[in-house]
Formats: sequence, C-alpha cells, structure tokens
Amino acid sequence: MSTDNYVVSNTSPQLTDLTVDNITKNIKLVNSQTPNPRLKFLMEKLADHLHDYIRETKLTTEEWTETIQFLTKCGQISNDVRQEFILLNDILGVSVLVDALNNPKPSNATESTVLGPFYTDDAEDVVNGESIASPGKGEICLVLATIKDTKGKPIHGAKIDVWETDGNGLYDNQYKNRDKPDMRGRLTTNKDGEFYFKCVKPVSYAVPIDGPVGKLLGKLNRQAYRPAHIHFRIWIPEGDYTDLVTALYLQDDPYITCDAVFGVKKNLIVDIGKVEDTAIAKKYDVDEQDWLIRYDFVMTTTDETQALLSISEQN
Amino acid sequence: MSTDNYVVSNTSPQLTDLTVDNITKNIKLVNSQTPNPRLKFLMEKLADHLHDYIRETKLTTEEWTETIQFLTKCGQISNDVRQEFILLNDILGVSVLVDALNNPKPSNATESTVLGPFYTDDAEDVVNGESIASPGKGEICLVLATIKDTKGKPIHGAKIDVWETDGNGLYDNQYKNRDKPDMRGRLTTNKDGEFYFKCVKPVSYAVPIDGPVGKLLGKLNRQAYRPAHIHFRIWIPEGDYTDLVTALYLQDDPYITCDAVFGVKKNLIVDIGKVEDTAIAKKYDVDEQDWLIRYDFVMTTTDETQALLSISEQN
Repeated sequence: MSTDNYVVSNTSPQLTDLTVDNITKNIKLVNSQTPNPRLKFLMEKLADHLHDYIRETKLTTEEWTETIQFLTKCGQISNDVRQEFILLNDILGVSVLVDALNNPKPSNATESTVLGPFYTDDAEDVVNGESIASPGKGEICLVLATIKDTKGKPIHGAKIDVWETDGNGLYDNQYKNRDKPDMRGRLTTNKDGEFYFKCVKPVSYAVPIDGPVGKLLGKLNRQAYRPAHIHFRIWIPEGDYTDLVTALYLQDDPYITCDAVFGVKKNLIVDIGKVEDTAIAKKYDVDEQDWLIRYDFVMTTTDETQALLSISEQN
Repeated sequence: MSTDNYVVSNTSPQLTDLTVDNITKNIKLVNSQTPNPRLKFLMEKLADHLHDYIRETKLTTEEWTETIQFLTKCGQISNDVRQEFILLNDILGVSVLVDALNNPKPSNATESTVLGPFYTDDAEDVVNGESIASPGKGEICLVLATIKDTKGKPIHGAKIDVWETDGNGLYDNQYKNRDKPDMRGRLTTNKDGEFYFKCVKPVSYAVPIDGPVGKLLGKLNRQAYRPAHIHFRIWIPEGDYTDLVTALYLQDDPYITCDAVFGVKKNLIVDIGKVEDTAIAKKYDVDEQDWLIRYDFVMTTTDETQALLSISEQN
C-alpha cells in the first residue's frame, strides 16, 4: 500500500476536539486545500447538507448503521445490467431533478426525461418501417414520428436510439444469456424529418423490487410501477442541436399519474389507438387492428440551450 | 418477481410535470403515506437536503454520473473485513458527528469516539496481565487502566474489548487467511476497577487508500493517516451504565492534530513513556525499557446519559 502521495500539512486546522457544533466548519477547513475549485465547492455544500441532515434528524447510531448497510447492498446488487443507485436516485426524484436542471427546454420543444438504467449502446441499425422487436414479443405497434427544430423545420439525418420492454415488461438485458439486442433499434430520419418503425405495444412494469430500493418502496407504502413508455435518445450528427434523452408515455395507463420514478411530463404523453385507416395499414405493412402512436419531436439548438442555462446560472 | 405488495393509490399526487421548483414538495407528498412516522420524517428531511444540494450546486449530469459510479464502487469493494462506506462517513466527519449526537457525556466522563471498521466480536478472554498480541508483533507496551463512575467509585466486573494494529499498522483482519483473533482481547476489571494488559506500542497508519475513498482523499489533497491509538469498547453487564466505544491516542504522534477520520478528542490523548520503575517492571513482568500507558476511564450512568439526551432533544 503506497501512501507516498500523502503528506502531513502544516496548515491543517487543529482537530483534537470536534463537537456537534464546530465539526462542519472544521471539515470544510480540512477540505479547503482541494486544488479543483468546483470539487471544493461541491464538498463544502456536501458537508453543510449532510451534517445539517444528521443534526436536524438527530440520526441515531442504529439508523446510521442501517443506512450504511443499505448503501452497501445497493452497490453489491449492481452489475452491468442493473444499477440500484440509479434506481435509488430515480425513486427519490433526484434523477428527474438533475435532468431538469441540466436540460432546460423552450416551451415548444420536446422535454427530456430520465434515461433509466436499461439503455445500451449496441442497438442495431433499423431501416424505417422495420420492426425493432423480434417476432412474438408482444402486440404490434406502429410508431410514426417526425423530428423538427423549434421553428418547425424538419431535420434530416437525425439519429434515434429506441428501446422498450417486451410485452412482459422486461428489457432484453434483464434476461439471462442475452446474445444480441432486442426491442432496441437505431433509426435515421429521412429528408422530411420522418422516422417510423414497428415495435411492441409498451406495457406498464414494476421497477426491480427484489433489492434494497424495492424494500424501501415497500416501507414507504409506495407503488413500484412505471406507466407504459418507449425510450428515445436523439442526436443530430450534423447540426448544432442538444442531444435529447426522452420517452413517450401512454395516456390511458393506470400509472400515468403516479410513475414510481417520476419520469412523466405532460409534453411526453401520447394517445395510442388502432391503425384503422386502410391506406396507412397498407403503406406501413401492418394490420388495421394493430396499434398506432404518432409523435412530433422538437429539438433544441445548442444556442437555445445555452441561453436557458445562462438564465438558470443567474438565479 | 412479485409485485403484489404494491397497489395504485388513489390519493397520490398528480405527477405529470415535475419541475426544478415543485419536485421536492411532490416527492414529500408521495412519501407521505409511509406508516412509520420516524421514517416519514427522515425521508422528508432527505428530500429537502438532497434536492437543495442539487439545486444549490447545479450538479451536472457528468458529476451525478460520477457520483453514482463512486457509490457503486464503495459498495463493491466492501466485504466482511472492509467497509468503504464507513470510511467515507469517517472522512466526511459524519461518523464522529453521529457518535457525538448519540453519546453525550458529562464533562468529567471519558468521551466516546468512532468505532472504526475493524472491530470484531470474537476477541478471546485475556486474564489481567497477559498480552493481547502474539509474540513479535511490535514493541511491547504495558497498559495500566482503571474504570470508575463519575463519582470516582471503581467498577468491578466491567468488560473491555481492546483492539489495535500490529507494529506494521495493520489489524489482524486486514491479513488474508486470518485463522484466529490477534491484537485483540476481552478483559474484566478486578474489585478495584483495574484492568491491565500487554500489547504492542500503537503506530500511526494510513486508512485504506486503494479504493474510491482513498482516491477522493487524494483529490482533496488530504493526508490519509490516523494517529497511533488503541480501541476500547467497555460495557458493564451488571449496572446501569451506558456502553462506551472509545480509543486512546498518543500525544506525540505527528498526526495527532490531523487525524484523517477526526476521531481524536483532548480527553482521549495519553502520554506514552518507558516503564523505568523497577517495581512496576517486576510486578507486571515487563522490561524497564518497555512502553507504558496509564489511563483512568470514567463511565457514564444511563440516567446521566438520558438527562443529557433530553437536553439535546429540547434544542
């Protein structure tokens, strides 16, 4: 074990009697030699809030020990395809808060929402009109979408990663022995800004409840379901647009107003209906009784984003 | 995966447009159906402080992602003999704060301090005068101690778990293939409230720096050493006294004023010197050139503790 990097500092505060009242000031002094000013600021605010939390709640030793065990379990149950700390942040509203702070949008643009822990970067290219799901994974659903800017101009060549669960409410990477991606695809908009694909009708599903976060949800008497949705990650290789991580949620889902991870925004709620129209069924090679979702995504330029972030920084 | 425990609540707030400004109130509403009032209170305060921290720092998505990865690593490096989350709490001053809040002491009583992650409950019984360390583990040190109450009355039959590192600064459970406890012992006071044992002269040592917390210490430009110390856990099986978890720190240690985990209290600093006195050397079967530490522990009654906790609760 090398400890060569560490030297005793002559300027450290004297720490031979930390009390409930003086500890926060002293911890900040100890951290004040952090070379990175941003990290120094983050650690100062952390000491303030963490210590205030403990003082205000008069946290007991037992509660503290339980918290240590809880956090340890969250780390130990996490792996390549499961992230319990993201789930914890999700159910505490932290993920959606961080997302909202970092991704302000003009009022007519599509809102962002939580990425979730199931994104993978290995989705295969899908030609417009094809299905992202292998056969038999659920009820067939056609998605007809466009991508435009805030002035209504269609965006050609936009890239879209789409991912969703199968009809059982499970992502491909929740199954053991996943050998290739499924219920995922990477699409590209045509010159009219359109992209369209077949998938399975999204279903509501419970977040994983067999781990520490699921047990916490139980103690909080909270429900664990997410309303049915399809995830989208959109980026424009040629053009100055802010990447968009978002999802579309089904209007009639029973969980639409009580998403366990708080991802729903009004702007992202869509109707789902039957195709019905014979011409559409024929054009896209689906049945009139298959499902149909339509949505027009509106992208934000990096200039628009920067302007909104500047306003936020002044507050 | 059973989700039977979860039902959609009719009284949940409407969560279809959480913003930076309304999210905290809404998360608290969602958690408000927690049956346990203490847990409900802890979750309310958690939402306040966690969300305020994120708003005040305008935490970036990258910083948030890095934090998730950091916490995950802390969980994954932890095991039966290593607890990275305790270490994290230690270096943030949280452990000593929780300890101080939960263990108030009258001014003439021995203060408590952090338990640390190396305590085990398998220490073997040691008769007064014996050594807690197997031969060759470091320089021999004699400890002569008493245990009394705040009125000076000796306590007979007090139980004391003692543990320390060897001369290399490592606890027995930091070695692979530990087959039985070493540098640990369980003692009992005699009718005069005395207990005494041989051990190795404690040395300063670095907390584990090969994990995420060690890397954080490096980024904070902080030193990783603890001053030399011996741990004590004292409890009185027959008698209404509050258990005491504490440690004695050596006065002349170069790290005495900059303990990486903030455990030192003036009340717990002791001188170490040579035995010198021939009569003592003979009585305790040590050499005059061996080391000697003397300390008088003062225990707090449960009534004294309750009185101090009541005052704290009123603040």
